[in-house]
Amino acid sequence: MNKNVLVLGGDGYIGTALIQRLLKEGYKVITVDNLFRRKQAISAVRTVSYKDKEKHLRKLGDVFEAYQFDFALEPERLGEILKEFQPDTIVNLAHIPSAPYSMKSMNDASYTLANNVIGTNHLLWQVKEHCPNTHLIMLGTTGEYDHYCNIPIEEGYFSIEHKERQSNELIFPRRPGSIYHVSKTASTYLIDFCCRAWGLRCTDIMQAVVFGAYTDEIHKTNLKTRLDADADYGGTVINRFVVQAAMGYPLTIYGEGKHQRGFLSLNDSIQALMIAVTNPPETGKSRVWNQLSEWHSMEDIAEMVKKVGEKKGLQVKKTYIPSPRSEYTGEHFYEYVTDILPSLGYKPTRTIEEEIEYTIDAVDRSTFEEIKEHLDPKVNWR
Amino acid sequence: MNKNVLVLGGDGYIGTALIQRLLKEGYKVITVDNLFRRKQAISAVRTVSYKDKEKHLRKLGDVFEAYQFDFALEPERLGEILKEFQPDTIVNLAHIPSAPYSMKSMNDASYTLANNVIGTNHLLWQVKEHCPNTHLIMLGTTGEYDHYCNIPIEEGYFSIEHKERQSNELIFPRRPGSIYHVSKTASTYLIDFCCRAWGLRCTDIMQAVVFGAYTDEIHKTNLKTRLDADADYGGTVINRFVVQAAMGYPLTIYGEGKHQRGFLSLNDSIQALMIAVTNPPETGKSRVWNQLSEWHSMEDIAEMVKKVGEKKGLQVKKTYIPSPRSEYTGEHFYEYVTDILPSLGYKPTRTIEEEIEYTIDAVDRSTFEEIKEHLDPKVNWR
Repeated sequence: MNKNVLVLGGDGYIGTALIQRLLKEGYKVITVDNLFRRKQAISAVRTVSYKDKEKHLRKLGDVFEAYQFDFALEPERLGEILKEFQPDTIVNLAHIPSAPYSMKSMNDASYTLANNVIGTNHLLWQVKEHCPNTHLIMLGTTGEYDHYCNIPIEEGYFSIEHKERQSNELIFPRRPGSIYHVSKTASTYLIDFCCRAWGLRCTDIMQAVVFGAYTDEIHKTNLKTRLDADADYGGTVINRFVVQAAMGYPLTIYGEGKHQRGFLSLNDSIQALMIAVTNPPETGKSRVWNQLSEWHSMEDIAEMVKKVGEKKGLQVKKTYIPSPRSEYTGEHFYEYVTDILPSLGYKPTRTIEEEIEYTIDAVDRSTFEEIKEHLDPKVNWR
Repeated sequence: MNKNVLVLGGDGYIGTALIQRLLKEGYKVITVDNLFRRKQAISAVRTVSYKDKEKHLRKLGDVFEAYQFDFALEPERLGEILKEFQPDTIVNLAHIPSAPYSMKSMNDASYTLANNVIGTNHLLWQVKEHCPNTHLIMLGTTGEYDHYCNIPIEEGYFSIEHKERQSNELIFPRRPGSIYHVSKTASTYLIDFCCRAWGLRCTDIMQAVVFGAYTDEIHKTNLKTRLDADADYGGTVINRFVVQAAMGYPLTIYGEGKHQRGFLSLNDSIQALMIAVTNPPETGKSRVWNQLSEWHSMEDIAEMVKKVGEKKGLQVKKTYIPSPRSEYTGEHFYEYVTDILPSLGYKPTRTIEEEIEYTIDAVDRSTFEEIKEHLDPKVNWR
């Protein structure tokens, strides 16, 4: 019946939305979060405290428990929960999600690697020990791949003809573009290996940039999720442009802005995660899929935000600044293979334009004063 | 003139040999080691203490300093050394080198990941800060690649034709077969990224299994290097078979023993590292090469040890045991591309047979009592 779900990192942007969907659909949910994000990032949508969130969520569903600890530091506490709760599914959202944060300093980079890689390692060993049949859903990122590889980006694995030989199945080449992305890539290899060695049951999702503030549940309950807007954690492009537009600041396009990335709305990220929850894979091999609805250049995204913003009476300007990232910003071939999710019933529910419109309304003007100082990137990755 | 060399992990199997070559050739050498290996592994060759080794090495060369600390824990101390010594070359041998150790327990796996990945991260940031032009030589492993990929294993990067498109340069796909190998793979991606982002100067060596006890210097000075023989650290196959043969134990072949791996002698590993030291690459892109002399199946290796052992009057039996590793042990296609090192003058100096003969004589019979209990693998990776 897949009724017990453990959400790791349930206090974050996606976790807060996912838990509401799970509870609505009758799942028993436990979450663990270290609340690191609350201390670090500045949200343009005000959220309730972790304690209050727990109270609200308990009203939504049958069973809900929220724990506060860090399983990268206290893996045994995670083990105790696994042993007792025996989750059918674990969704691991407990990664540092920020590329700019990982490039700030040596210690921030080390913390990102330790939290994400050691955290994943702890999780895999504890699952092997206490609930080896559990479906483990891990969140990777399309940023593990090489955006400039000049061939279609396959779903995790592929086979090639090389020097007149047909290869066995290969892991599709990664080329992470930040230390955060290295930590995600390392997790992918760890998951692939542990599935093969220990016969675990994993879905490792290569997810593109998630944006927006809407989900079917948030819209009704008004139990909002965060929308980070500071340079470190709000570095993902659509949300950043929306906040800039709402604040009357020019949209800052990095470099030429011709470089493309993949996108999906928050509501569709939750849709896709629920498809993962309800469709566990076989054991012994990590199932990898590409999770995105469409791909666009930064300039196209800026144009969409400008168009929607102006329709809503905002004055929206664009400005081009040197990219603080080490990335190529010119034109390039870009294409994803996305067969698996649609084959399991995935259909995008939100267009980028309607989600931009919803999100412009969702941001809280009273946060702007605090955001102002933290909006512009201070970290030059080079 | 490339005269200042910092060897990280200089107390280990390769480090002890490399430092002697460097000093003989007139380099100034500083080493840092945390001495973790001395506490963990059991060597079939007795070595002097770190302090005594320092004294001996000081007699061999112009300048030699040995520090004892762990830069995965104390990166600032490493930074101070870089700032003052301004090495022309850094050779990083300070990784946990053992696949079986990394599979013993969650904590051993985490320690391996933390030491190797966080250590590499610290090193890269400290180099960027204090000596960005220094040539950084990093030791990867051929075990990062997929031994069963069924195509020739290229030197780090390649381009493919896929779906009627020619790719840009890709990182040759990795598929690590242990958590140790995941830590090495993560380091490769970290190095590749930091070279591109920060314009560092790196050689990332994919080295196969090193074996033997001979180097030109060790043979003369008798300042020996370790030859680990316990199941965790002595897991590399030729050295293990040699110790088993010398002890009168059957050579334990894992599974069918038809699986192949690459090899090079200790003397040739040192030769190749010196080629790296004297041939720094351009900045801005990690130079990767495959470092090995030949490849053989486990059964072939066992036959060679048996033949040489019997020639020396030993009774050598072979036995087949279920592989404690999660690896395929049947026949498979296996081929490496090894163009770069030979193009820089590399020529193997030692045949496997003569190195086996030398190493049988080099092992110290007085260590056998201690080794006995620790010879057989106790960790089942599955």
